[in-house]
Amino acid sequence: MKAIQVSKAGGPFELVDREIPKPKAGEVLIKVQACGICHSDMFVKEGGFPGLEYPRIPGHEVIGTVESVGEGVNLWKKGQRVGVGWHGGHCHECEPCRSGDFINCQNGKVTGISFDGGYAEYMTAPQEAVASVPDELDAMEAAPLLCAGITTFNALRNSGAKGGDVVAVQGIGGLGHLAIQFAHKMGFKTVAISGSDSKKDLAKDLGAAVYINAGKENPAEVLQKLGGAAVILATAPNGKSISPLVDGLGINGKIVVVGAGMEPMEISPLQLIMGRKSVGGWPSGHAKDSEDTLNFSALTGAKAMIETYPLEKAEEAYKKMLENKARFRVVLKIS
Amino acid sequence: MKAIQVSKAGGPFELVDREIPKPKAGEVLIKVQACGICHSDMFVKEGGFPGLEYPRIPGHEVIGTVESVGEGVNLWKKGQRVGVGWHGGHCHECEPCRSGDFINCQNGKVTGISFDGGYAEYMTAPQEAVASVPDELDAMEAAPLLCAGITTFNALRNSGAKGGDVVAVQGIGGLGHLAIQFAHKMGFKTVAISGSDSKKDLAKDLGAAVYINAGKENPAEVLQKLGGAAVILATAPNGKSISPLVDGLGINGKIVVVGAGMEPMEISPLQLIMGRKSVGGWPSGHAKDSEDTLNFSALTGAKAMIETYPLEKAEEAYKKMLENKARFRVVLKIS
Amino acid sequence: MKAIQVSKAGGPFELVDREIPKPKAGEVLIKVQACGICHSDMFVKEGGFPGLEYPRIPGHEVIGTVESVGEGVNLWKKGQRVGVGWHGGHCHECEPCRSGDFINCQNGKVTGISFDGGYAEYMTAPQEAVASVPDELDAMEAAPLLCAGITTFNALRNSGAKGGDVVAVQGIGGLGHLAIQFAHKMGFKTVAISGSDSKKDLAKDLGAAVYINAGKENPAEVLQKLGGAAVILATAPNGKSISPLVDGLGINGKIVVVGAGMEPMEISPLQLIMGRKSVGGWPSGHAKDSEDTLNFSALTGAKAMIETYPLEKAEEAYKKMLENKARFRVVLKIS
Amino acid sequence: MKAIQVSKAGGPFELVDREIPKPKAGEVLIKVQACGICHSDMFVKEGGFPGLEYPRIPGHEVIGTVESVGEGVNLWKKGQRVGVGWHGGHCHECEPCRSGDFINCQNGKVTGISFDGGYAEYMTAPQEAVASVPDELDAMEAAPLLCAGITTFNALRNSGAKGGDVVAVQGIGGLGHLAIQFAHKMGFKTVAISGSDSKKDLAKDLGAAVYINAGKENPAEVLQKLGGAAVILATAPNGKSISPLVDGLGINGKIVVVGAGMEPMEISPLQLIMGRKSVGGWPSGHAKDSEDTLNFSALTGAKAMIETYPLEKAEEAYKKMLENKARFRVVLKIS
Ligand SMILES: [Zn+2]
Ligand SMILES: [Zn+2]
Ligand SMILES: [Zn+2]
Ligand SMILES: [Zn+2]
Ligand SMILES: [Zn+2]
Ligand SMILES: [Zn+2]
Ligand SMILES: [Zn+2]
Ligand SMILES: [Zn+2]
Repeated sequence: MKAIQVSKAGGPFELVDREIPKPKAGEVLIKVQACGICHSDMFVKEGGFPGLEYPRIPGHEVIGTVESVGEGVNLWKKGQRVGVGWHGGHCHECEPCRSGDFINCQNGKVTGISFDGGYAEYMTAPQEAVASVPDELDAMEAAPLLCAGITTFNALRNSGAKGGDVVAVQGIGGLGHLAIQFAHKMGFKTVAISGSDSKKDLAKDLGAAVYINAGKENPAEVLQKLGGAAVILATAPNGKSISPLVDGLGINGKIVVVGAGMEPMEISPLQLIMGRKSVGGWPSGHAKDSEDTLNFSALTGAKAMIETYPLEKAEEAYKKMLENKARFRVVLKIS
Repeated sequence: MKAIQVSKAGGPFELVDREIPKPKAGEVLIKVQACGICHSDMFVKEGGFPGLEYPRIPGHEVIGTVESVGEGVNLWKKGQRVGVGWHGGHCHECEPCRSGDFINCQNGKVTGISFDGGYAEYMTAPQEAVASVPDELDAMEAAPLLCAGITTFNALRNSGAKGGDVVAVQGIGGLGHLAIQFAHKMGFKTVAISGSDSKKDLAKDLGAAVYINAGKENPAEVLQKLGGAAVILATAPNGKSISPLVDGLGINGKIVVVGAGMEPMEISPLQLIMGRKSVGGWPSGHAKDSEDTLNFSALTGAKAMIETYPLEKAEEAYKKMLENKARFRVVLKIS
Repeated sequence: MKAIQVSKAGGPFELVDREIPKPKAGEVLIKVQACGICHSDMFVKEGGFPGLEYPRIPGHEVIGTVESVGEGVNLWKKGQRVGVGWHGGHCHECEPCRSGDFINCQNGKVTGISFDGGYAEYMTAPQEAVASVPDELDAMEAAPLLCAGITTFNALRNSGAKGGDVVAVQGIGGLGHLAIQFAHKMGFKTVAISGSDSKKDLAKDLGAAVYINAGKENPAEVLQKLGGAAVILATAPNGKSISPLVDGLGINGKIVVVGAGMEPMEISPLQLIMGRKSVGGWPSGHAKDSEDTLNFSALTGAKAMIETYPLEKAEEAYKKMLENKARFRVVLKIS
Repeated sequence: MKAIQVSKAGGPFELVDREIPKPKAGEVLIKVQACGICHSDMFVKEGGFPGLEYPRIPGHEVIGTVESVGEGVNLWKKGQRVGVGWHGGHCHECEPCRSGDFINCQNGKVTGISFDGGYAEYMTAPQEAVASVPDELDAMEAAPLLCAGITTFNALRNSGAKGGDVVAVQGIGGLGHLAIQFAHKMGFKTVAISGSDSKKDLAKDLGAAVYINAGKENPAEVLQKLGGAAVILATAPNGKSISPLVDGLGINGKIVVVGAGMEPMEISPLQLIMGRKSVGGWPSGHAKDSEDTLNFSALTGAKAMIETYPLEKAEEAYKKMLENKARFRVVLKIS
């Protein structure tokens, strides 16, 4: 089969011919149709993820069909339409797993990092990492839902925001353009926050009721005029840009951080005490959450805006993503 | 001013000429534009509500403008667009009020029952019972939101259901036809349950993803095929018709009862224990909840389908409502 | 090994000599020290549980030590102190399992019903059904925590009641005498409801702040004088006795039903709407919940009051339980 | 009457003779028995609180009896035992008030800052700021519950922590020594975190199950060995000391900040995303919350450890508080 692999940290995307893998016990072999390119694929390209071994095929936004299943797999059958996301399986044995909190599994695997991912014609995945995909969805448009989509959908639906509440989405990129749609379709009064006016029309089309150009206006002030945000979903992984948003929260308001950055936010106790505010994080989701995301997409029509590349042009596609030039997710069309 | 009053339990709607009331301290005088007719107006027409005195002007779905305000009223100003609903004021002093739970005030007033309501050209209301109304809304379409709307909107947004969850609405009448729209606009997978196929097309137009004709299908079975309902909003005040719906709930599912009936539901402990299910009630809301309902309507376009009558034809309009012949709320056009 | 088995529905408890079972893949062999006798053991004794096969060794309140483990078991090691409760394992594959809601597994096993239980010197259990037991606890006193304990502890800690809230426990038996202790130790203003005064002193000793003799007083009235109950834990599986308690709930109050009966409760919509009340069920818990229950017992000293019998006298012990003569749980001392 | 007033920012506590105030409409005149000294009295002593006018009598931890009531006060009667805390009244009209969220009133008053407080033989307070005090409580021991107590009690009971959860209290001072008791009495596995071993025995006596000397051990590491904290209540108003505690949280864990400091915490998005953690603030509570705090104290015996001073020695008492030499709250004995 054709595949794109990385052979060492910092190495190129190499187009290689590999044998089609055989599913081991508990695994599913998937014929890949589409695989999104995610910023986190950088962990494979540049290295640094704990436990990563080379060569490795990246890709954790995968849509395809079941080709065959390994021993002991009852859940999946040949021909079924499936997807695989960031969460690549869990151990069923650690404390979080025993509580049913799979996403926090202490031995959790990551698709395309712990094992070969979807930049290939075939891949295997642990059965518990596999999600069912509704027929209505286009494979290419659905692929990014497995990572960018699930993260924002899951964060928003679990944020505590209720119909009609002011919900702001900071950053209109791969995550943000999905978050705006989800927030809108959940009946929130959706506010899009970006650094310029270039995405204003688009944000409105995606469902934003209010657009804030943070280059011209103070987002916190605009949000306070709307009564204060119940939730601000921060998709930019930039601590510094998040800190001032605290003052845009309404009473009991909450910032939910999904863009995983290391740079600290600076927030004073007093900012949180006045108005009973909080700042929390949200970490994507498991296969069942993926199904919920995909079903929500089928129900409401919310979907990724994508640019399409063939597998062979993965390097070019990745570069476009990295430079934030894609509108808004790049997806490899594989079969 | 012209008004419709009832002079004794069981008496007719009398068209009378009354003096325009003067707002007392803490009260607001409202020039009424529209007043919905609600099933609960029966409490005035037929009597039986604790503390009700005659003659009484009914009406608790009121849209109008502030004409003047009594002493000590800072919140409202002449010309402002306002509404008044079922909750007609609270005491600020009882235990629920001291906890901020106004709707459960032990000395709470009911508009059109504790004091004269909106079947009139003018009415007064305690300032805390008054809600601001967005300019975008049509007075006639907005009036029913003050009772049928707030009850279902508030019940749904506080039900714990999340975007994509299966939410069923039992009964497609004055409450139900609004509930379907609200549920749809909140991103729920909305299921409409009715007793025949006559409202099927309409329900789909209002946003129902699935329609159940309870005359032909077992709603519990259909709901289980959809994975079980996260929430079933029961709008029919009929205990017997609610009981079997328990078996249509999914795990952690909840029936929320808003149709206030006396006839008991019959539910076994085992039905609730298996799957951790529950049955609870929801009682409309206060003025701020009304504002949230109206704002949600302005944001999403959800609104009442109405039939219009002049004030003089209140008797005819009321009768149509009572016979369930209206599609779906009857509203008096007053000025 | 010695064991007590039932050979047919309605048959006697037979003392038999059986071979010590061998743990299969994923199973743990436990040397049993203590096994509580539960009302649900009647399902084995009298038959009627779906899928039950004879002969069967009952018992799902088991404390012991790991003797050996089957293939693929990493979690448990020889000598470890463990317990097994009602929840006897789950499939990891059904929809509830994939969501991490093991207790609602569609293929869930029940200890002592789906497989042989703890009325024996040894038993095997699926590894996911096994709970770790703190050293501080006495085996005999801890055994009932695995069913009567976990059910009430888990229902109370998840009830939403907060420190200082009025929490009533209806019924002072095997479940109730534990629930009173748990509620007290969680800082609730604990109310014990019983049918006579015979358990008054004991209930106070266990931590009840208020005692209601339902034979002389109306529980709903007494609870309303206390401000209304935030939670009423109904341990008696009797629908009729639960219905009137609804009127003892405070605003937002909730009845949580744990005594699994078939006889329906009768509750009117209006009872639930006024004060936003609800009635829900709670179904024990999984192995991790068992550990939380046991740890809470070790932390706070809450524990079962027991009567002890040797394995050979299981019939006599069972009879005492059945006649409600035990104070309050009967436990077989096995090794 | 005797009173202690401050005449200008930075001025001394002056013992003066004042006329007994007369309660205006909606006010209650209280004969003061005890008034705690709080760190926030510094706002009067040193100035800087928005809207503060001099001369001002400080004091917002007041226990006394109703002496008389102003016009329109129905809730309180002469002779009733009452208390007043930090929250000194609300407007009933602003958006938070209309939602029942009094503590976030946009026109809220602060006792002893917006109006004269409890360093005096008599004081007046708005009726909605007055709390009923149970007979069982000692006035001196109860006074600090009105500020240090309500803040920690309210934060803990609303933290989402459940019986048996690991709850850590950072800082063992005026707030912390109460928080440890509350956490213990709510059934949490209570961890006390302090900077030395000097308070170890005391913390254990107050109910701490575990004691961490942050001078010798890394609190985050110790907490992780306990499974991670569900809640860490940060009572020290020091952003820097709070930041590292994030890594001591368990999955879904939450830091609740009650010590109001301006110095920022530094927290990275990644720290919060891994394990779905959050940091939030909690702002004391209103009169009904005070009653809940006092009732919890009466129910469980949790109470302030105090040092007593006569009104005349307010300066000395204040100084002792300021230097953190008091164990643990200083209370003026007034009548
Ligand atoms: Zn990704
Ligand atoms: Zn795991
Ligand atoms: Zn109505
Ligand atoms: Zn009231
Ligand atoms: Zn049992
Ligand atoms: Zn299962
Ligand atoms: Zn206010
Ligand atoms: Zn204070």
